[in-house]
Amino acid sequence: MKLVIGNRNYSSWSLRAWLYLTESKLPFEEIYLPLDTPEWAAEIDKYSPARRVPVLIDDDLSVWDTAAIFEYLLEEYPQAVGWPHNRRARAHARSISAEMHSGFIALRDELPQNLRQRHPLPLASLSPTCQAQIRRIQAIWRDCYQRYAGPWLFGEFSVADVMYTPVALRFLTYSIPLDNDVKIFQDAVRHLPSVKRFLAAARAEKESLPFIDALIGQADNPLTLG
Amino acid sequence: MKLVIGNRNYSSWSLRAWLYLTESKLPFEEIYLPLDTPEWAAEIDKYSPARRVPVLIDDDLSVWDTAAIFEYLLEEYPQAVGWPHNRRARAHARSISAEMHSGFIALRDELPQNLRQRHPLPLASLSPTCQAQIRRIQAIWRDCYQRYAGPWLFGEFSVADVMYTPVALRFLTYSIPLDNDVKIFQDAVRHLPSVKRFLAAARAEKESLPFIDALIGQADNPLTLG
Repeated sequence: MKLVIGNRNYSSWSLRAWLYLTESKLPFEEIYLPLDTPEWAAEIDKYSPARRVPVLIDDDLSVWDTAAIFEYLLEEYPQAVGWPHNRRARAHARSISAEMHSGFIALRDELPQNLRQRHPLPLASLSPTCQAQIRRIQAIWRDCYQRYAGPWLFGEFSVADVMYTPVALRFLTYSIPLDNDVKIFQDAVRHLPSVKRFLAAARAEKESLPFIDALIGQADNPLTLG
Repeated sequence: MKLVIGNRNYSSWSLRAWLYLTESKLPFEEIYLPLDTPEWAAEIDKYSPARRVPVLIDDDLSVWDTAAIFEYLLEEYPQAVGWPHNRRARAHARSISAEMHSGFIALRDELPQNLRQRHPLPLASLSPTCQAQIRRIQAIWRDCYQRYAGPWLFGEFSVADVMYTPVALRFLTYSIPLDNDVKIFQDAVRHLPSVKRFLAAARAEKESLPFIDALIGQADNPLTLG
């Protein structure tokens, strides 16, 4: 299989698809197409009629949009990271995953993924909608930890954890304060070896996107996962 | 089962969930919670921690976000509208459905669902991003009709048709010109008896949302599906 990804530093959907394949222990080759570059312009149409990353290429079949990639892999490869087995937990995991897939637009705009940097942003500088979305994400995590044992949202690592990994890392980049009872998720994410590997690769990237870096400013204040 | 929906006239996700249950011939009771009303404010938290519609209530279990509702029902009820059976068609249907679920933000903003009205909007009045999204949707439909027989996107009615039904109706509301070879989808949608029934119910609603109706103006120019 091949996975076409954008900048690891900025593309949260690339991170999700990469993490899903990696945690599923499915071998794949990365095709790196950094956004807003001549390579992107020359090659994206070859891989994606939607002109978006990630795209999974499995032999002669191409699957795009991360949610479709997960469901496709789950059907084809029994070892792929799955949904919780319990019916109630599965319906819950699907609900919060679809909520992330279709929403949180203000949070995406105001706290864009920028993995390799740390740049504290005061909550008050964010729009009321974005602040409400930060509270909603913590409420989602809290609800999981009140029902399931942790350390992942539904106990064992599942699709839902992949969906919420990038937002846990955005909260580190911008030092968004989290309630103690939900930090468990962010801690689980930051200590995952595959996440550390992805961050190291993001750091090694030479490309940058000025409209996202503008939010961070000039200071080089690298994010460490600990 | 119960389905909590918002205004049929404006809520495209309510339309999708309603249509899915109806075409699946699954009996359900509607709970109508019109947006921006005192009922909404008083009741939405009872049904939806995400404060969004639709929500499916199946006995003591609640499932939200339309994409999760589809997958939940598909697992629980074998008669539910499904994905295409062929592996390649299924991966394709999942890809375009996820693309609709996560994207087309400009189109949603600039051409909000307003089922009961017809208000021609010149293409040139839309942003270049929205115009590109209109072209992308037609390219998605064209690609389907070049590979599958019609009248639905993958031959038989599937989840993908439910996902694209509201956009076909938005194109009617705003008289967006479509290429002849893809009108087949819009024609299939406008002649579906369940869609006609939903439109009649939308027309009977007394509530209106001024920020959406402002786009339409004062004239009463009802949409007829033919």
